[in-house]
Amino acid sequence: MTSPDLSAHLDRDVAQQELFDLLRIPSVSADPAYRADVRRAADWLQAKLSGLGFAARVDDTPGHPVVYAERQDAPGKPTVLIYGHYDVQPEAPLEEWVTPPFEPTVRDGRIYARGSTDDKGQAFAHVRGVELLLSRGALPVNVKFLLEGEEEVGSPSIVPYLQAHAEELKADVIVISDGSRFAQGVPTITYGLRGLSYVEILVQGANRDLHSGSYGGAAPNPINALCEIIAALKDDQGRVTIPGFYDGVEPLTAQEREMWASLPHDDAEFAASIGVSALPGEAGYSVLERIWGRPTLDVNGIWGGYQGEGSKTVIAAKAGAKVSMRLVPGQDPARITSLIQEYVPKIAPAGVTVEVRNHHGGQPMRFSTESPSIRAANRALRRVYGRDAVFARTGGSIPIVAAFAEILKTEVLFVDMGLNEDAPHSPNESFAVQDFENGILTSAYLLQELGRE
Amino acid sequence: MTSPDLSAHLDRDVAQQELFDLLRIPSVSADPAYRADVRRAADWLQAKLSGLGFAARVDDTPGHPVVYAERQDAPGKPTVLIYGHYDVQPEAPLEEWVTPPFEPTVRDGRIYARGSTDDKGQAFAHVRGVELLLSRGALPVNVKFLLEGEEEVGSPSIVPYLQAHAEELKADVIVISDGSRFAQGVPTITYGLRGLSYVEILVQGANRDLHSGSYGGAAPNPINALCEIIAALKDDQGRVTIPGFYDGVEPLTAQEREMWASLPHDDAEFAASIGVSALPGEAGYSVLERIWGRPTLDVNGIWGGYQGEGSKTVIAAKAGAKVSMRLVPGQDPARITSLIQEYVPKIAPAGVTVEVRNHHGGQPMRFSTESPSIRAANRALRRVYGRDAVFARTGGSIPIVAAFAEILKTEVLFVDMGLNEDAPHSPNESFAVQDFENGILTSAYLLQELGRE
Repeated sequence: MTSPDLSAHLDRDVAQQELFDLLRIPSVSADPAYRADVRRAADWLQAKLSGLGFAARVDDTPGHPVVYAERQDAPGKPTVLIYGHYDVQPEAPLEEWVTPPFEPTVRDGRIYARGSTDDKGQAFAHVRGVELLLSRGALPVNVKFLLEGEEEVGSPSIVPYLQAHAEELKADVIVISDGSRFAQGVPTITYGLRGLSYVEILVQGANRDLHSGSYGGAAPNPINALCEIIAALKDDQGRVTIPGFYDGVEPLTAQEREMWASLPHDDAEFAASIGVSALPGEAGYSVLERIWGRPTLDVNGIWGGYQGEGSKTVIAAKAGAKVSMRLVPGQDPARITSLIQEYVPKIAPAGVTVEVRNHHGGQPMRFSTESPSIRAANRALRRVYGRDAVFARTGGSIPIVAAFAEILKTEVLFVDMGLNEDAPHSPNESFAVQDFENGILTSAYLLQELGRE
Repeated sequence: MTSPDLSAHLDRDVAQQELFDLLRIPSVSADPAYRADVRRAADWLQAKLSGLGFAARVDDTPGHPVVYAERQDAPGKPTVLIYGHYDVQPEAPLEEWVTPPFEPTVRDGRIYARGSTDDKGQAFAHVRGVELLLSRGALPVNVKFLLEGEEEVGSPSIVPYLQAHAEELKADVIVISDGSRFAQGVPTITYGLRGLSYVEILVQGANRDLHSGSYGGAAPNPINALCEIIAALKDDQGRVTIPGFYDGVEPLTAQEREMWASLPHDDAEFAASIGVSALPGEAGYSVLERIWGRPTLDVNGIWGGYQGEGSKTVIAAKAGAKVSMRLVPGQDPARITSLIQEYVPKIAPAGVTVEVRNHHGGQPMRFSTESPSIRAANRALRRVYGRDAVFARTGGSIPIVAAFAEILKTEVLFVDMGLNEDAPHSPNESFAVQDFENGILTSAYLLQELGRE
C-alpha cells in the first residue's frame, strides 16, 4: 500500500501563525518573574489539544505545570507518547537579539524567536502533524502528549510526576524532537545523549573588598585563585584532571568510529561556521567523537570584582563560576558531582575558602539502532527527505530520558527537526520554516509508520 | 620657642559639618553620569578657599576641573603646595553599604562615606588646618592648593596642566595626604610608592554564544582560556612569569628590611583583620616587604558567560578581565604594559583570539628620608602624636607624584592621616573622627615647622 503524500494538505500559513502565538508567550522557566507566562503557555497547549479532540489537561506540580493529553483512536494499535517542553531558555543577552526574542520574525526563511527550535517549534510540529492526520480521518495509532515546563531547568518535577502517572503514561514508544539533525537535508536519528553534571564554584578571599595597593602581594585574591582552580581542571591534552572522572567511561565502538568518520563533516567548515581558527579538545579523538562520545568540562559563566566601565584597583572579596561537565555512558552525574566537590578544595590555593554547589544533572544514554520503532522512523524520514537517516549521538543532555527509561521502561525514539545553526541557547535562536513544515510531515508519517509495525 | 597647642582652638563640629557637605557631593570621576557632580565639588572647594582669603579658581581641563588657590602671606618664607583630589571611587557594590555612600554617617567614632578617607577627609583637613592657623594670625608660609578631580582615573589631564602652570605652581615642597598611617596611634611618613600598570584582557572564542552540548569538547571556550592565561601569569612561588617583568627592579636595602622588620606588624593579626587564614605571596619576602617593596599582579575583575540565577549551559563567545600590576622603582609602567601585551597572545590557548588593552599607569617612586622637610614633618607629627614617625613605603600608587618630580622638580612629602581599616575603594569606607581632627592639627603644625626650616 503506497503511502499518500500529505504535503498538499498541510495548511502552512495557519500552522505558522499558531506557532507564532505560542512563541509570543515568554515561558522562561529559569526565572521566577515569568512564572505566570509559563502557565499561560501550558493553558494555550491544553486548549489547542482539547480543540483537536484530545482529553487534555494541565497538571500542577511543585514547579511548572505538565500538559497531558490523549486520544485512543486505535484499539489494538501501538500507543505513541510524544514528549516535548514548552518552557524556554532565558533570553539574555537581550541586547544581542536583532528582533525581540518573543516577537517571532521570519528572515531569510527562518523563524527567529526564543524557543523556535528549542523546543516549541518541534513540539508544536507534532501537534500540527496530528492535526494533519485528523484532517484525513482517525489517527492510525493511540497518541498521548506529555509536555512539561521545566526542561531548561533540569525537569525537577518530572520524576515524581512519572511515578504518580506511570499507569496513565504507558506507551509502546516515546517520541522526542528537541535537537538537531546532522546537516541540512540530512534526516537524523539520535541514539545517544550525553549526561550532565552542573556545579557552581564559589571562592572567598578576605572578609571585604580590599585596596590592591594596600594589600596586593599579601592578601589572597579569590579571582586569581578561581582561575588557578579552573585551569587545573584540565591538562594540556584536553583531558579533565578530576581523579576518577573517566572511571567506567564506555569506549566508542569501532563501528561507531567508522560510521561517524564517514559522515559529511568537515573540520574547517565546522570551525568557520562558528568563526574560530581551531577546535581544541581531547587528544586522540575527532571532533564528532569528542562532541558525541567523550565527556568534557566547560565554564558557562564567571564573575568577580569590578566589571564596570574604566578601572578599579580592588582585590575582590569573592568570585565564582558555573561549571558543567557533559558525561557519557558509564559516568553517573551524582558521582561526578561528588568527585569535583572533593577535588576543588584540594587544589584551591592557600588563603581562600571554596564551596562547590550542585545544580541539576542528567544521565547519559545510549540506545539500540535496530528496533522496529527505529525502522519505522527511518521509513517516515525517507518519505520526507528522500533518503535514509544517519545515526548519530548528540552532545546535549535531556535529563528526562533516563527517567523515561527507569520509570516508564519505554523505548525512546529521537527524531530531531532542527539544525545546529538554529543556535538554541544563544541570542537570535531560529528554526527554518522548511524544517518546521518537514517536521509536521515527519510527525504524521511517523505515526502512520509506527501504526504498521 | 615653644609651639602653642592649637587643639583648643579647633572648631570640631563646624569642621565636621563642612566635611559632610563636601562628602555629600557624589564626585565619581570614573563614571560620566556624575560629571556635573564632580564639577560641583570643585566649585564648593573654590568657594571655601576663596572665603579663607585665597585667590582661588576652578580651571577647566579636557577632563574634570582643577581647583587652584594661593595665599602669599610670607615673603622670604618657604612656599608649600598642598595637593589632594576631590574625586572619589565608584560606590559599587552599592548593596553592601550599611548607610548610603553619599550620606556621611558617624558610627563608633568613624565617618562613613565614599571619599571620607580617600581623599576628601584628608585634603579638607589641610583646608581646615590652614583655617585654624588663620584664626591665630597670618600664615607662617606661603600656601598653594592644587586639588584635582581625576586621581581615581589616573589623572589623565594633570601632566599638561602641570606643564602649562609650572611657573605658577613653583614651591619648595609639595605635601600629599592620601593614604594610611602604619597603625593606630603611629604617625607615618611615607617615602615610597608603588607604580601601576593596568590592562584589560579580552578573549574571543566563537562568533556567538554556543550550546555547550552541541559544541562542548570541540569549540574553544574563552572563559576556560582566560583562566588558563591568568593562572599562567604567576608561578607556584608567587612570582610573575611575564618575561622581563623583574628586569631592573631595585632591591630592598638591608636598612629597609631591618627597619620594617622592627615595626609592630604581626602576620596573624594582619590576616585576622581581613578574615583570611593565609597571606600567600612571593617566596622569600615578608608581608611588609611584599606590599611596600615588591611588584605584584592581581585580577581586579573578571566576567564572561551567564552570571544570573540558576544554570545556563552555554559556551560564551567572550570573556574578559581587568588585571593590574603594582610596580617598584626600576620598573617602567609603559614597558611593563608592553611586556604583558606581548606575552598574553603567546600563552593564549589555541582557538581563541586575545586583545590586551591599556588603562592608566603610574610611576613607582622612592625619596630620601633625610631632607629638612621630612625633619619638619617629623616634628609636626611629634606634637600631635607624642612620638616620632615611622618611615614606610606604601603599596599604593599615586600617578601624579612622578609628574611632580619630573615637571615641577619639587620634593614631595607624604603625611598620611588615614588607616588601612578605613577601607578606601571598598564599600563602607570610613575615616575616624579623631584622625580627621589629628589631620587638621598635623597640617597646621606642619606649616609652622616648615616655616622654621
